[in-house]
Amino acid sequence: MTNNIHEECGVFGIYSDRTANVAGTVYLGLYALQHRGQEACGIAVCDDGVFSSKKGEGLVSEVFDENTIKSLGEGNIAVGHVRYSTTGGGGLNNIQPLTIRHIKGNLALAHNGNLVNAEELRRGFELSGAIFHSTSDTEAIAYEIVSERLKSSSTEEAVSKIMSKLKGAYSCVLMTATKLIAFRDPNGFRPLVMGKRNDGAYIIASESAAIKAAGGELVRDIMPGEIAVIDKSGVRSIRTNTCGKGSLCVFEYIYFARPDSVIDGASVHHARLRAGQYLAKDSAVAADVVIGVPDSGLDAAMGYAKESGIPYGIGFVKNKYIGRSFILPEQHSREDAVNIKLSVIKETVNGKRVVLVDDSIVRGTTCARIVQLLREAGAKEVHMRVSSPPFRHSCYFGTDIDSEDDLIACRYDNTEDIARVIGADSLAYLSIEATSEIAEDCRLGICNGCFSGKYPIEITKAPQKNKFEQKIHR
Amino acid sequence: MTNNIHEECGVFGIYSDRTANVAGTVYLGLYALQHRGQEACGIAVCDDGVFSSKKGEGLVSEVFDENTIKSLGEGNIAVGHVRYSTTGGGGLNNIQPLTIRHIKGNLALAHNGNLVNAEELRRGFELSGAIFHSTSDTEAIAYEIVSERLKSSSTEEAVSKIMSKLKGAYSCVLMTATKLIAFRDPNGFRPLVMGKRNDGAYIIASESAAIKAAGGELVRDIMPGEIAVIDKSGVRSIRTNTCGKGSLCVFEYIYFARPDSVIDGASVHHARLRAGQYLAKDSAVAADVVIGVPDSGLDAAMGYAKESGIPYGIGFVKNKYIGRSFILPEQHSREDAVNIKLSVIKETVNGKRVVLVDDSIVRGTTCARIVQLLREAGAKEVHMRVSSPPFRHSCYFGTDIDSEDDLIACRYDNTEDIARVIGADSLAYLSIEATSEIAEDCRLGICNGCFSGKYPIEITKAPQKNKFEQKIHR
Amino acid sequence: MTNNIHEECGVFGIYSDRTANVAGTVYLGLYALQHRGQEACGIAVCDDGVFSSKKGEGLVSEVFDENTIKSLGEGNIAVGHVRYSTTGGGGLNNIQPLTIRHIKGNLALAHNGNLVNAEELRRGFELSGAIFHSTSDTEAIAYEIVSERLKSSSTEEAVSKIMSKLKGAYSCVLMTATKLIAFRDPNGFRPLVMGKRNDGAYIIASESAAIKAAGGELVRDIMPGEIAVIDKSGVRSIRTNTCGKGSLCVFEYIYFARPDSVIDGASVHHARLRAGQYLAKDSAVAADVVIGVPDSGLDAAMGYAKESGIPYGIGFVKNKYIGRSFILPEQHSREDAVNIKLSVIKETVNGKRVVLVDDSIVRGTTCARIVQLLREAGAKEVHMRVSSPPFRHSCYFGTDIDSEDDLIACRYDNTEDIARVIGADSLAYLSIEATSEIAEDCRLGICNGCFSGKYPIEITKAPQKNKFEQKIHR
Amino acid sequence: MTNNIHEECGVFGIYSDRTANVAGTVYLGLYALQHRGQEACGIAVCDDGVFSSKKGEGLVSEVFDENTIKSLGEGNIAVGHVRYSTTGGGGLNNIQPLTIRHIKGNLALAHNGNLVNAEELRRGFELSGAIFHSTSDTEAIAYEIVSERLKSSSTEEAVSKIMSKLKGAYSCVLMTATKLIAFRDPNGFRPLVMGKRNDGAYIIASESAAIKAAGGELVRDIMPGEIAVIDKSGVRSIRTNTCGKGSLCVFEYIYFARPDSVIDGASVHHARLRAGQYLAKDSAVAADVVIGVPDSGLDAAMGYAKESGIPYGIGFVKNKYIGRSFILPEQHSREDAVNIKLSVIKETVNGKRVVLVDDSIVRGTTCARIVQLLREAGAKEVHMRVSSPPFRHSCYFGTDIDSEDDLIACRYDNTEDIARVIGADSLAYLSIEATSEIAEDCRLGICNGCFSGKYPIEITKAPQKNKFEQKIHR
Repeated sequence: MTNNIHEECGVFGIYSDRTANVAGTVYLGLYALQHRGQEACGIAVCDDGVFSSKKGEGLVSEVFDENTIKSLGEGNIAVGHVRYSTTGGGGLNNIQPLTIRHIKGNLALAHNGNLVNAEELRRGFELSGAIFHSTSDTEAIAYEIVSERLKSSSTEEAVSKIMSKLKGAYSCVLMTATKLIAFRDPNGFRPLVMGKRNDGAYIIASESAAIKAAGGELVRDIMPGEIAVIDKSGVRSIRTNTCGKGSLCVFEYIYFARPDSVIDGASVHHARLRAGQYLAKDSAVAADVVIGVPDSGLDAAMGYAKESGIPYGIGFVKNKYIGRSFILPEQHSREDAVNIKLSVIKETVNGKRVVLVDDSIVRGTTCARIVQLLREAGAKEVHMRVSSPPFRHSCYFGTDIDSEDDLIACRYDNTEDIARVIGADSLAYLSIEATSEIAEDCRLGICNGCFSGKYPIEITKAPQKNKFEQKIHR
Repeated sequence: MTNNIHEECGVFGIYSDRTANVAGTVYLGLYALQHRGQEACGIAVCDDGVFSSKKGEGLVSEVFDENTIKSLGEGNIAVGHVRYSTTGGGGLNNIQPLTIRHIKGNLALAHNGNLVNAEELRRGFELSGAIFHSTSDTEAIAYEIVSERLKSSSTEEAVSKIMSKLKGAYSCVLMTATKLIAFRDPNGFRPLVMGKRNDGAYIIASESAAIKAAGGELVRDIMPGEIAVIDKSGVRSIRTNTCGKGSLCVFEYIYFARPDSVIDGASVHHARLRAGQYLAKDSAVAADVVIGVPDSGLDAAMGYAKESGIPYGIGFVKNKYIGRSFILPEQHSREDAVNIKLSVIKETVNGKRVVLVDDSIVRGTTCARIVQLLREAGAKEVHMRVSSPPFRHSCYFGTDIDSEDDLIACRYDNTEDIARVIGADSLAYLSIEATSEIAEDCRLGICNGCFSGKYPIEITKAPQKNKFEQKIHR
Repeated sequence: MTNNIHEECGVFGIYSDRTANVAGTVYLGLYALQHRGQEACGIAVCDDGVFSSKKGEGLVSEVFDENTIKSLGEGNIAVGHVRYSTTGGGGLNNIQPLTIRHIKGNLALAHNGNLVNAEELRRGFELSGAIFHSTSDTEAIAYEIVSERLKSSSTEEAVSKIMSKLKGAYSCVLMTATKLIAFRDPNGFRPLVMGKRNDGAYIIASESAAIKAAGGELVRDIMPGEIAVIDKSGVRSIRTNTCGKGSLCVFEYIYFARPDSVIDGASVHHARLRAGQYLAKDSAVAADVVIGVPDSGLDAAMGYAKESGIPYGIGFVKNKYIGRSFILPEQHSREDAVNIKLSVIKETVNGKRVVLVDDSIVRGTTCARIVQLLREAGAKEVHMRVSSPPFRHSCYFGTDIDSEDDLIACRYDNTEDIARVIGADSLAYLSIEATSEIAEDCRLGICNGCFSGKYPIEITKAPQKNKFEQKIHR
Repeated sequence: MTNNIHEECGVFGIYSDRTANVAGTVYLGLYALQHRGQEACGIAVCDDGVFSSKKGEGLVSEVFDENTIKSLGEGNIAVGHVRYSTTGGGGLNNIQPLTIRHIKGNLALAHNGNLVNAEELRRGFELSGAIFHSTSDTEAIAYEIVSERLKSSSTEEAVSKIMSKLKGAYSCVLMTATKLIAFRDPNGFRPLVMGKRNDGAYIIASESAAIKAAGGELVRDIMPGEIAVIDKSGVRSIRTNTCGKGSLCVFEYIYFARPDSVIDGASVHHARLRAGQYLAKDSAVAADVVIGVPDSGLDAAMGYAKESGIPYGIGFVKNKYIGRSFILPEQHSREDAVNIKLSVIKETVNGKRVVLVDDSIVRGTTCARIVQLLREAGAKEVHMRVSSPPFRHSCYFGTDIDSEDDLIACRYDNTEDIARVIGADSLAYLSIEATSEIAEDCRLGICNGCFSGKYPIEITKAPQKNKFEQKIHR
């Protein structure tokens, strides 16, 4: 609610030895990944080589019901996708899984991430007469695979050959008539995990929480640069070149992923607790209570409380009924809207010095209103602690961040000024150095480019959204 | 209602000198073409090169409302499409206009008809790595145009070069960033007309009735083999090779088209009257009243009455509220369903010898029920007259006919047997010869392949629907 | 389409000896009565004394589907209602059947007509503490029945006692735990018929067409002043005082009812033919073709043609897809809307002297547009013939007519002026005298108050709609 | 999610000196009260004596949108209601506010609570010919008021006279043409508060959280037995007899109300913390972490942690996208459903002795699954602590509790057995005595009848739901 930073997708796939309601499993998995994208979703099922798919705009609960799940029929392989995108870049043609037919058969592709050279790849294909239905870079990946497939003995061989051409972030699941293939870019920007169910079915998902939700157990991460192929002979792995230690997006730990997920070896919940602890160590303040902004600030708040010894409190009630259909009636101020979305428990903060923890500050406006709500409820002091460094740069790898003009950390020179703008008595951010420390068990390096401006791969031009002159309305 | 024969599409396009609510005009046009396809529809608008589109399953009234029309925005060119397809061949990806991006920009294509060599065309492209999103032959046409466009100086030049490769029926409107292009196959299987509005805007449509509905006047037909290009310098025409006199589908006159349309010079209403007159001349019978099955049998019934001198009567009331959402409740027979859809006016037929005129007989079951209804209402004799010859063959050019196994004219050797099956005292069809005579002002030859088995172009294999192993559910 | 005069309701009821899908039968019946009211509908089912009901705003096809029919369950009695009302008088509480609980059990009531003393009846009950949920006079009828029921030995006895208190029009079906009761006001303003199905089930309906649609056969009319009681011992009848010969609304024959219905002994189709014949006799004109405005002008046009010897022609195509969801896009004139709703078949009228027949003229604006369309299509002369007299007065018995200020016949002194306003070369109406002649087999007298200003019962005050200060929005 | 106990309603009203978007304010208020009822809702607006209303089944977000709020128009008084009811007792007629017309004008009534003598009251009215549209006791209250109003000089006088006749729980808001009247039963079973906005508008609501959400501040509680009248001359109060100290439902503190609400002087959050503290004192156990079941178990868990000194942890992630439209796909077990709704954070519990706190145990099945989830995540011991006493009795005052047959505390003799059934290492409940202590600042006595079986007013017969033989389907 308090965040203008958006993840761009979640992917899910299942391979079963026998014919089953695989669409139902993907449905459960997408529910568990819904936080990674709320604008559209889709499921494609393979039943003995015949593909069925259903996609639509909206939440999983809006696109799928008992009948649509049933209409997809049974099968032994299925893939699914949840998608975030801004209005302009939406449209039915962009909803995934991308399902296409090519010379060797059918193919369904679900992609999380963002390529930085999508436009070059497209141009290359267009020069030989290709047509593009969508504005997403996923279609360029599909063209690469299909093109290489003509010269390869298998789809996985085609994938292994084209991965060096794709620059940027891609955690993908790919369904063919007989195989489920997962592949992750050499940097491993976005998470991708493999799980297994008691009945022997294999699951690929963006997060381990989705494996649990689908009734399976986490087996391992798909490694950066890895291609995992699942078919009737089991799982086998192809390793392509990786980029050193890799560079997982640290904001997955800080905000995107579910706290119950374990990514590349590290617990998200634990990483958030540690972020709070670092904040407490580096930016201590005398206070009576530590509270977090629900839901994403709670873990770090608890870490802060634990490290500082200041009691943890429940500061807010979040109205769980506020959704996209909530409208602000005429004659009612924006303040009424915040009042109804987020309500302070006066009991917790009245007459107290409060440490307020949130995961990030983007524009600062919501943050300022929350500080004001606390003061109205009687807080004597409000000390804001943010469990990420200031956002100052763009992301090229699948995160949608406001333009730099809107970022409060770009508009003000120093933290004191920002504290003043949001009305806090003090303000402190997690240090950029600490971003490498919070996920202590993480096997990969991290990417903190949006904070540091240092990116793990060379960026030649600005990130663009809606760069094609084609708007497809819903 | 009484017909299992389906047209496959209707197309509409507008080019205006100035920016206007062109989406609204297409909306009106599609309403007037709704009888040509009720399963899906779409509109694409070009505003200074930027394309916006909206497509969906259902009637125009279901897919579009005030907000969606508004969201398409203003523009100066727009195209639209209404689509018929069977369930399996549906899916969002198949809804037109097909909107794509290629090396030279954007393109929107709406197609009525059916190619007989679509599979070969596809295969050729797929061999060079092409991917197909849809199962419709329209995407193959788009690939041909885009591929040729790389070597041509204009889109219309590309169209003119590829028309010889396309075998079958295609009446198309094509929108580029600056032009509206209409093209019709050399046989002219499906109608395509050009109109003009008082404000100077040009209109292309499947039928002249849609031009009227959009506030314009019919200018002329697009000729078989013609490419008409409309842009800021006006209209210009490219003529490619034609196939002799052409071969317009005669069933457009008999059933598909609206009676108020004028196709290739001939009034549809007039052609139907003449079909009734031919029937009266060739198959006279002593009777007291001539009635038609609403709505498509009424014109021919009037022609029969005029020629025979037997009084014309209103024999049925059709329930106009019965739509796709009507369901037959449990414990109610199929007969109840016919009762509620079509009701006899007893007054008209009681105690009389009745000539019953309908446009065609497909399976014969509905026809048999109607004859029975007349008998229950007191008709002494029922003489069935059909304003088309017996259906005995497939159509390869865009009409969806039941399989030969289900066609009553294939299942029974002679007309007497069929009369007996449907319970009529006598039965007569329009002669195959007369099909060439009914549209006396038609400038083209006609195709009556579904009746005669003689097709104007060579057919090498059976027509296939849903031939690709890809089901895309709604 | 061309008419601003509205019927206010249709009713339907079924009594079966055994438990069956009676809701499904009512559903079929309401489909057949949909023309009598499109704004709301409802069904109530009695299963061994337990009532279930479902009501909603919209067409039968919008309110009911397979699931809702199923959810009503089986039963042995059921009643249904289709409703017309203006926006303000709508609201969920006014939708019928009215289902209530009283001291003796449950009761469901469906009413067609309008009381002229509803306000007095209400006031009487309110003075003793009654509360009203709806603004419809049906609730007052229910209160009368329930109140009398306390002192009576049966519901039918209660009905028989209160009928003298109800002034105005009411054709009702009433369901109790064990009976289906039909009653019709002593004048018989609105039709009400009884039918029977092969399985022994009895049907009550506003029109015989609904009995046919539900698989039954017309048995007889419910007589003015009659109470028909159907229960396990069969049908019995209670006759209360009648008002002379009765006074059936003649506009039921002219416009409201379906042409395939037979009302009080007379065929609606036949009455319309005769209206056309009277017009031809009284207002002959030299012409080349007679055409009717679809659908309600067609029968009278045929009668005119028959009587005059001028050939009948099909003059218009009506777009059957235009429904409530059709919107007129911006930048498009009202004329475009008429163009798309009603299209002239040029072939029929070009270069000809045309007799144009419609059932009525209310405001004259649509009529003027239709005359203009004919001229644009090349008609040399247009002679308008109207199969009813001019509307000049209000109706108090269940028909919703425009206010006198808007009626063209009130605004202009003579027919010549009206002809000029609508652009016709000549204009003639059916004479008031002829209204008593058209339904030659009708056993009742007729009410033509809206034409003549002479009403069969005394009217003390102006008809009011939405007279209560309670607006209930959808 | 984990609870089968349901509150039956929430009410809201506003009175403004000037005409304003009062419907919009009620909309905001109902959003804040949505937890009190999710099955239906409604708003009624009074604009200068004219009432408009809109009601429907579903959440506030489903029934209301920008257009419906706009269609209600402006006004100066408005009332709203959110409703819980089981399927059978649903139906459109039962949705509140109840809007009726009586001899003195219009009236809209919204009611939270349950009368124990509704059936007697009804019967009395029915004996004099009254008809009932709904099966809710609210209509009986309306009849009482209207009946008394005939003999009284004002509505508030009528209310004051009838309150002694109503036995049971009722916190009501009543709207007349000029007044907003709030009244609460003499026991004060259900909360009811008054607030004020900066612009002078008065607000009545079930909970103070709704006043905040609507932009106002809590002024005071409506007292048991109080009638508060708000009109243009301000607020005045009528006190009727009260029942000693009163008897507020203690389950409002434990579960129903929002933690940010203050009821009769006591903070709900604080009462829950104290419940946890009592549990820790009375049922100490050696453990490593205290976790609460979200959302209602969190406050008590924190109280337990605080009192015991055992660290508080975040044990679960609740999937916020799971709503009524979530379905459990075929071939998936109920366990998969719990997995996806509630997910354990393994990090928090693995290898630890866990104190698990929830607000109540009803049937025990969900509870058993949660304990199992903790064990699967590696918890060494699970000690269940419940912040309410065991449910063993019915509620007659507006809470819907499972039948005694299904209550686990009725089915097993002692706590040890229940602990075994749910799989916990130990189990302890809040003592009945402690229920009187948790809300230390509460000015009223409490009702704990569902735990103790001792009710503050005499109960003569069993509570009944759906006692009338009238099912009204949606």
